[in-house]
Amino acid sequence: MRVGRFITFEGIDGSGKSTQARLLAERMEDAGQDVVLTREPGGSPGAEEIRSLLVEGDPGRWSPETEILLFTAARRDHVERTIRPALDRGATVICDRFADSTRVYQGAARAELRGTVDTLHALMIGLEPDLTFVLDMDDRRALERGLARGSGEDRFEELGQDFQARARAGFRALSADFTDRCVPIDASGTIAEIAAAIDAALADRAA
Amino acid sequence: MRVGRFITFEGIDGSGKSTQARLLAERMEDAGQDVVLTREPGGSPGAEEIRSLLVEGDPGRWSPETEILLFTAARRDHVERTIRPALDRGATVICDRFADSTRVYQGAARAELRGTVDTLHALMIGLEPDLTFVLDMDDRRALERGLARGSGEDRFEELGQDFQARARAGFRALSADFTDRCVPIDASGTIAEIAAAIDAALADRAA
Repeated sequence: MRVGRFITFEGIDGSGKSTQARLLAERMEDAGQDVVLTREPGGSPGAEEIRSLLVEGDPGRWSPETEILLFTAARRDHVERTIRPALDRGATVICDRFADSTRVYQGAARAELRGTVDTLHALMIGLEPDLTFVLDMDDRRALERGLARGSGEDRFEELGQDFQARARAGFRALSADFTDRCVPIDASGTIAEIAAAIDAALADRAA
Repeated sequence: MRVGRFITFEGIDGSGKSTQARLLAERMEDAGQDVVLTREPGGSPGAEEIRSLLVEGDPGRWSPETEILLFTAARRDHVERTIRPALDRGATVICDRFADSTRVYQGAARAELRGTVDTLHALMIGLEPDLTFVLDMDDRRALERGLARGSGEDRFEELGQDFQARARAGFRALSADFTDRCVPIDASGTIAEIAAAIDAALADRAA
């Protein structure tokens, strides 16, 4: 039944994921493709409501276990209402963060939670991307970029440099774990250079 | 570590659970006991926020799977922030609905979901009550009583008589599954008669 391609962007905050996801969607649309650009947490009306519970308020308002359950609930809704229907009609789905972010961030909070995340994913979600771009750059520079952006919604300002460094290591380990679908991208260059690296990786895969 | 007793009330809407939970808490408090009366979904500030997502809006806004995840997220928060701390200090916790309601209602929506509920409970919650009063009464009378109450929050008005009948059968099966902790209570009598039956069952257990 599933005929479309599911592409995700992962990496630490400030690494340029959202920009590159949007630019790739634009290039594909310009080439006449049916593309759905979406993001997590969120991406469907119900999941956006759950997102509000996750990104607003004190960093300590939920335990890591409750956070994992809320992320999985939002993802289930997002997959059912947005991602699956788009893939079923043959569209390409480009998603800014997906299950890998939960694996890395909640696993970074307490290492033994990685198993919980994987069990929940297998039980309630199942879907994996066909291709994942993992944007990698110096975590100090990424944090500065994120702070400059000052979204206010992301709680990573309070989580600080140590957390960014652990998350970067987590994303690098992820690329090594899922070599079949993960493509590490050097995100230290200009926006145009990163976009060119993404296009080159896509052309490689299509060949 | 856990020293207090955990008592839950279960049964279909309109069976008088909330009234009996409150009256039992009052009798215990009058006897000088440390009692925490709570309810699900909800029972802690975070869980109450998740409750709003669950009980407001269209009955079809969430799939059964997403509902199970949201109920489990709310329950995890409730157990961490309200139930466990009370049990650890030696209090009796009386809870209006707990995991059994998810087993019955989500299992009534689609039978194969019962396994999902049980797996999630084992993975993320673990805690079971020491004693569960399962209030049983004619589902038609219970529905009329619920409609007369007209809470507006409960969505069971739209779910109708068939659903109430299936839920009643589900709670009866539950009592048969967990005979070690479940006590079926005939809830067709007066409030005082039901309270007396509950006290008799408690005295039996203490003996």
